[in-house]
Amino acid sequence: MRLFSQCQGPHNPVPRVSKPKILLQLDGDSHASSFDAVVAIDAGVDHLLSHATVRPENVLGLVHGCMFTRGPDDLRHTAIFVGGSDVEVAEANFQEVCKSFFGPIRCSVMLDGNGCNTTAAAAVLAAGKHVDITAVTALVLGGTGPVGQRVARLLAGNGAQVRIGSRRLERAEATCSELGKLTAVNREQLTPIATHDGIALDTALVGVQLVVSAGAAGAVMLPATNRAAAADLQVAIDLNAVPPAGIEGVEVTAKAKSMDGLIVHGAIGVGGTKMKIHKAAIRQLLQTNDAVLDAEEILAIGKRLN
Amino acid sequence: MRLFSQCQGPHNPVPRVSKPKILLQLDGDSHASSFDAVVAIDAGVDHLLSHATVRPENVLGLVHGCMFTRGPDDLRHTAIFVGGSDVEVAEANFQEVCKSFFGPIRCSVMLDGNGCNTTAAAAVLAAGKHVDITAVTALVLGGTGPVGQRVARLLAGNGAQVRIGSRRLERAEATCSELGKLTAVNREQLTPIATHDGIALDTALVGVQLVVSAGAAGAVMLPATNRAAAADLQVAIDLNAVPPAGIEGVEVTAKAKSMDGLIVHGAIGVGGTKMKIHKAAIRQLLQTNDAVLDAEEILAIGKRLN
Amino acid sequence: MRLFSQCQGPHNPVPRVSKPKILLQLDGDSHASSFDAVVAIDAGVDHLLSHATVRPENVLGLVHGCMFTRGPDDLRHTAIFVGGSDVEVAEANFQEVCKSFFGPIRCSVMLDGNGCNTTAAAAVLAAGKHVDITAVTALVLGGTGPVGQRVARLLAGNGAQVRIGSRRLERAEATCSELGKLTAVNREQLTPIATHDGIALDTALVGVQLVVSAGAAGAVMLPATNRAAAADLQVAIDLNAVPPAGIEGVEVTAKAKSMDGLIVHGAIGVGGTKMKIHKAAIRQLLQTNDAVLDAEEILAIGKRLN
Repeated sequence: MRLFSQCQGPHNPVPRVSKPKILLQLDGDSHASSFDAVVAIDAGVDHLLSHATVRPENVLGLVHGCMFTRGPDDLRHTAIFVGGSDVEVAEANFQEVCKSFFGPIRCSVMLDGNGCNTTAAAAVLAAGKHVDITAVTALVLGGTGPVGQRVARLLAGNGAQVRIGSRRLERAEATCSELGKLTAVNREQLTPIATHDGIALDTALVGVQLVVSAGAAGAVMLPATNRAAAADLQVAIDLNAVPPAGIEGVEVTAKAKSMDGLIVHGAIGVGGTKMKIHKAAIRQLLQTNDAVLDAEEILAIGKRLN
Repeated sequence: MRLFSQCQGPHNPVPRVSKPKILLQLDGDSHASSFDAVVAIDAGVDHLLSHATVRPENVLGLVHGCMFTRGPDDLRHTAIFVGGSDVEVAEANFQEVCKSFFGPIRCSVMLDGNGCNTTAAAAVLAAGKHVDITAVTALVLGGTGPVGQRVARLLAGNGAQVRIGSRRLERAEATCSELGKLTAVNREQLTPIATHDGIALDTALVGVQLVVSAGAAGAVMLPATNRAAAADLQVAIDLNAVPPAGIEGVEVTAKAKSMDGLIVHGAIGVGGTKMKIHKAAIRQLLQTNDAVLDAEEILAIGKRLN
Repeated sequence: MRLFSQCQGPHNPVPRVSKPKILLQLDGDSHASSFDAVVAIDAGVDHLLSHATVRPENVLGLVHGCMFTRGPDDLRHTAIFVGGSDVEVAEANFQEVCKSFFGPIRCSVMLDGNGCNTTAAAAVLAAGKHVDITAVTALVLGGTGPVGQRVARLLAGNGAQVRIGSRRLERAEATCSELGKLTAVNREQLTPIATHDGIALDTALVGVQLVVSAGAAGAVMLPATNRAAAADLQVAIDLNAVPPAGIEGVEVTAKAKSMDGLIVHGAIGVGGTKMKIHKAAIRQLLQTNDAVLDAEEILAIGKRLN
């Protein structure tokens, strides 16, 4: 193991100059995301240390290298971004980062594998412009996936009644149980619901004012006929950016657009907000050395921007 | 797929500051070229995003990450360099980059795998100081290789009669057919020619004023005896930097040097021009977001420097 | 091979601006050390070119890319750091770097795989505050390992009598022979000694004023009972940062601390000096283009700091 120390003591007469801002990018993919890299640079990062193919067993050394090279006053100028297209790998790496800290000897860290947190936060903010989140009943299609789970927990955490939709009910139930363990979420506000066919979908949509589709690319989560039959629906947000649309008829660039009596947003339509949140989160990472930014904290950043 | 948008709209009151200049280096080798990295930095790149072991299937995501993170006005501050020692891999990556763009949503891109384009351009510029390219008859030894092909197409594109030499005539014929498809090249100006032995070489050199050797390292492409027998030869350029010389007798550092009645250039002798072209090309990449720099465009940059 | 040249000649009328400071980080690990990266940045490096999984066969191209991209006057702004947790791989890479240079066409280079040289230098400087190195008899436990060898050669090179301890005497003998070949070291000052059990340890410590423990993590090199029995011992330095302590009873944060009549240092206790040496060495790398920083040169840098 490397030797280390907090190197500059109070006896150092050199006037303090702010250290360069360093972001350690831990990415699980074969090539670290250029998207996350450009956003980091545009958020003011001076030096990006990008690492690809990062697995939990690689995390400790990389995090300790950041923790033990700057004194406590300067650790806020070093931060960690955990990304990559595989959200499960990113989550495992993120947990490992958090376990690597020694009490106050730590760096700020943000999780945004596949943009899951910034996307979910942007979707919830978009919805909140049209409905009262604290009183709404929402259906999250693809609610067991990484983005869907985050949309669900953010909605529920802000007071909504949330139906977590999945083709397989038992998966929806498992997700409700998991999310119910989070301190930010009241299990009572989550309901698992099956969405395996049109009849199930119609049932799932009864009393729902807000639907968010967070399914995998390539799947039509809500056909137009079922959408049209949803009498209570007011707002539909589709987070799929690749054709076909997850919510049939919603254009990817739609932004608070009226369509068949609904207000709809497409993936690119919420992308502007997502990007602003992402940049603001990176900036916040570099303000202190103790931020831990997961879904709730990233939504809070988004709320302050709005 | 990630969500995205052109994030900052006209209602943003913040005064526009020029974004940092970012170069995405896509390199096919196990370790991204430090040569290309240093040149990029010295050409004014602020942040280099270097990626090694890049294959065509990795390109789309990396290019989209660059395209979708900055607004249209700022995309000229992000550019893409495609390199690596394997020119075929670099060419495949380059094609993939160009296919990833969506109309005007694009970044400038430059191909220079193994320095093929900057080297070919520098060789043609060196030749042009001593002969009239529009009227010259040239022989390109190793003319089917990546650098040789580019020298041939640049000479032909500027009016020269070009003999593409190869030990195997059918390979030279295939290269002539390929290059003849380029809009910049007239097939009539290309002649395939065998160079498998001394007699073939002597025949290939009849009427030739300019010879450029672009063969693989380790091969003597033109022995001294055949060179001496070439009655019409005026200029000889050897692009091989590793002993033995591709054109026997030409020193690697030779720059417009007189030798046995010829003017000769070695690989390092044209290297100064090559380097200036490389830097100027990187600078040009970062002026607009729509430059596509392959052989012809890179030669044009070189001409403006001269 | 790429073509190249020293591009800017004296006829270039452009006023000279200092080139950005570039550090090529050659690291043998799967992910390049973030520790070394942050230190480099804090030492003033403008652009870090980090390469992981570097093996000797990858070195030549990466070094030539640095050598041939800047003119002789600017090569001092490009330097090479060889690191990674496997010191043997780092040493092999370092040798390959040195072999890649062409006389004066070179860059400064530093070896510090696993922090071996900066750690050894810091340990020797710490010892020198309490004993006269030129007259001391020292025992290096784990003296055949990469850090131990460097502590031994630095102590011997500065006049100490050094016992190189190992559980296996023949390994200690081999290390003495190897180190004796260095010009900085007089073989007469090195003695191999077995430390395989308590009796051997007690014997090895007779007449020893200074003990440095540089064994692998997890091994107690010097139990408290043997330490207590060492009548001549004055200073004990433990370079193991992971519990259990290599020298039983020495806290990892101890810095010139009194303990049972001894002055002791732990790994973190010497870490402040280590870090200062590391940064100063990076700064020195970027002053000239011909520095070769191995153990002796890095200790010399440390002495100037003290």
